[in-house]
Amino acid sequence: MDKAMLTDLYELTMMAAYVDGRKDDTATFELSIRTLPEGWGYYIANGIEDAIDYLTGIRFDRRDIAFLKKKGLFKQSFLDFLERFRFAGEVHAVREGTPIFPNEPILRVTAKLTQAQLVESALLNMINFQTMIASKASRVVNAAARGNAVVAEFGLRRAHEEDAGLKGARAAYIAGAVGTSNVKAGMEYGIPLAGTMAHSFIMSFSTELEAFRAYARTFPDRSTLLIDTYDTLQGAEHAAIVGRELAAAGKQLGGVRLDSGNLGALAKKVRTLLDDHGLAKVRIVASSDLNEYKIEALVKADAPIDIYGVGTDLIAAKPVAAIPGIYKLVADNGGARMKLSPEKRSAPGKKQVFRCVGADGKYAQDIVALHDEQIAGVPLMTLAVKNGRRVRPKPALERIRDYALGEVAKLPNKFKGIDVPSSYPVETAPALKALIATLMKRSGY
Amino acid sequence: MDKAMLTDLYELTMMAAYVDGRKDDTATFELSIRTLPEGWGYYIANGIEDAIDYLTGIRFDRRDIAFLKKKGLFKQSFLDFLERFRFAGEVHAVREGTPIFPNEPILRVTAKLTQAQLVESALLNMINFQTMIASKASRVVNAAARGNAVVAEFGLRRAHEEDAGLKGARAAYIAGAVGTSNVKAGMEYGIPLAGTMAHSFIMSFSTELEAFRAYARTFPDRSTLLIDTYDTLQGAEHAAIVGRELAAAGKQLGGVRLDSGNLGALAKKVRTLLDDHGLAKVRIVASSDLNEYKIEALVKADAPIDIYGVGTDLIAAKPVAAIPGIYKLVADNGGARMKLSPEKRSAPGKKQVFRCVGADGKYAQDIVALHDEQIAGVPLMTLAVKNGRRVRPKPALERIRDYALGEVAKLPNKFKGIDVPSSYPVETAPALKALIATLMKRSGY
Repeated sequence: MDKAMLTDLYELTMMAAYVDGRKDDTATFELSIRTLPEGWGYYIANGIEDAIDYLTGIRFDRRDIAFLKKKGLFKQSFLDFLERFRFAGEVHAVREGTPIFPNEPILRVTAKLTQAQLVESALLNMINFQTMIASKASRVVNAAARGNAVVAEFGLRRAHEEDAGLKGARAAYIAGAVGTSNVKAGMEYGIPLAGTMAHSFIMSFSTELEAFRAYARTFPDRSTLLIDTYDTLQGAEHAAIVGRELAAAGKQLGGVRLDSGNLGALAKKVRTLLDDHGLAKVRIVASSDLNEYKIEALVKADAPIDIYGVGTDLIAAKPVAAIPGIYKLVADNGGARMKLSPEKRSAPGKKQVFRCVGADGKYAQDIVALHDEQIAGVPLMTLAVKNGRRVRPKPALERIRDYALGEVAKLPNKFKGIDVPSSYPVETAPALKALIATLMKRSGY
Repeated sequence: MDKAMLTDLYELTMMAAYVDGRKDDTATFELSIRTLPEGWGYYIANGIEDAIDYLTGIRFDRRDIAFLKKKGLFKQSFLDFLERFRFAGEVHAVREGTPIFPNEPILRVTAKLTQAQLVESALLNMINFQTMIASKASRVVNAAARGNAVVAEFGLRRAHEEDAGLKGARAAYIAGAVGTSNVKAGMEYGIPLAGTMAHSFIMSFSTELEAFRAYARTFPDRSTLLIDTYDTLQGAEHAAIVGRELAAAGKQLGGVRLDSGNLGALAKKVRTLLDDHGLAKVRIVASSDLNEYKIEALVKADAPIDIYGVGTDLIAAKPVAAIPGIYKLVADNGGARMKLSPEKRSAPGKKQVFRCVGADGKYAQDIVALHDEQIAGVPLMTLAVKNGRRVRPKPALERIRDYALGEVAKLPNKFKGIDVPSSYPVETAPALKALIATLMKRSGY
């Protein structure tokens, strides 16, 4: 992962000024997310494993150095510094797939100031996006689950370029999607692949029935036929004919797909029609600009939909589009540091998040504390990188997914709706409170 | 560019069914965008050059084939087909940076059905995103220009992963941004780099003044000092001290940056303060979750801001997040094809867009016509790929940018506001109208 140059110019200029001034304190930065989008109950931390891979692999190669030299901004001594640059610090982080809340530190970097500063832009780039998509997907999956349905991720064509398609498919799978249409994501991550057919396929045959038969010949055991190209109910009749032909040959039609119209009403009619043809096992897939709100409405209307194919709104987290992850200096050789401007205040000191279980076995509250405070609860961040090397093994994707789904199951249901009115309680521990008060007082706030 | 596997599973299954049925018509697909986001006046077509590179370079390598084989979905004959696969078709496309409007074809692929089908997902992935960002950036640039200010792209940390950061910086530059903070984008595309400093830099020194001096020592001729860490006006005083020290040494402070508070009011006070210190050349940079709406308000309030640093809302095109680009079959061996369902109707036949200039020298209207209709106006799509090879040379980035800015200049101003009430006129030519009527009638609509 060659992301050394994936940084904002100011990270390099600040580093150059530090190197010039021979100022290389050990500093601690923490990454957290300021707020939740309206109606969201939680985030699922994601991108953590990519962050660890990135941190432990940063190298500036010859081309990088040559480019920076040509820019004429930097002294040779700084270019030499970059050529030798390694991240040699320590990283604590929550596990990939952990539910998290605003203003909780989820990744903490302690390293020489130059090292801790350089990595800000790339860390935020990967963790902001992957966390946003996992969290959005979790909302969609929860809505579908309330109707005993599942979600497949179909967003590649509306993803923000290739990486977003790949990492987005992975994030959605971790959050509970059952598969993706993205073939490359299937190859890179081992995510199950899902897919149906396009209207163009139907249109390139003389009749819909001919198109269905051609497709079923090639995929007799896993066809999902798209039935809305001309008339959905007629399409369902055609699909039923093919379904019975397949059954007669000992095969099984997989499903039919609705992609337009009143999905709830059509699903009911199509379900009845299929059942009347003895095709009760044929599943109904629905797509068409879906999101958690539309799925919730379909579930409430008892639409007999088995699989929701969700594209645009999931992969671009529409309309949220971006979440406010930040990476802030919290300590250096001068002790705990705190950004004081009222709009953008940050909590000082090396911190930890402790999660507490209630009498019902569900998560009841979190406590943000100084890292060495004694708090009853499970600490969420553990040591992931020491001396620049990974010390926490990288889990397999299926294990991350199982963990994430298990953790979401432990959240009270009231935080899993599509329009969550209240915030999960996150308290500040006594010693952290005292530190904040001291620093505010010292600076006259 | 290894994007052969960056496709939706259904493209491959449809291809397999075509290969199985020995159905390999020559087909034509067109890419267009259904609608404009509310208040937007135009799109700037972007991602076209990437699309051409992609189309002319598709190869399935051994790893790809081995993965597909392992999935157990496909016959060996289809895997052999993929191993030999090349795109050998013809592509017409608008020039990168061309203003375009809803339902205008902007890229047309004519090729064997299997070839034209495979490429749908990747084409949409790149053109949707890059067009969205160029268009959003153009709105932001236009708003700033009304206040004689310029825009720098600062969005890396909120971009949807690395590719979005890189391609987004490029799209913003084409649309008129003057630079990017993204160092890798600077290296890959030659975009000018811009940057200031972070609050953490200020906080890691004992005093703000000490931090400013340290930075100015390293960058005596191009420092932009961030002045809002503690108190913005006090920060401006400190910056003025450093500005005068630099001036005394024959150097020049570049600028100061505001990142919080009432930007308009603060900019006025800071401008006066700097001018009073004889620092009229020091520019004021503003950032803080900016977008075209906030910039418009600042311009209307006569805020003396020279450079707007725009991040999140630009790079994620917030709140739009995704645009509805589609890729539809318009013709095959059976003649012109048309999707008839009322919600998602597409115009049939191989088409062209003609652009007409009005008496004032500005663009007056576009006419969508059959490709061989004789229409007065400039045809926007030209032949870019023939027999699978690029025949239209790839322009340099600066040329694309000059072209895009020149074309936007020719649009009437009423389409360049932040809240455009009317649509640019796009007419349908007579022969195309007649074809639509014939096909609708034939199918009973």
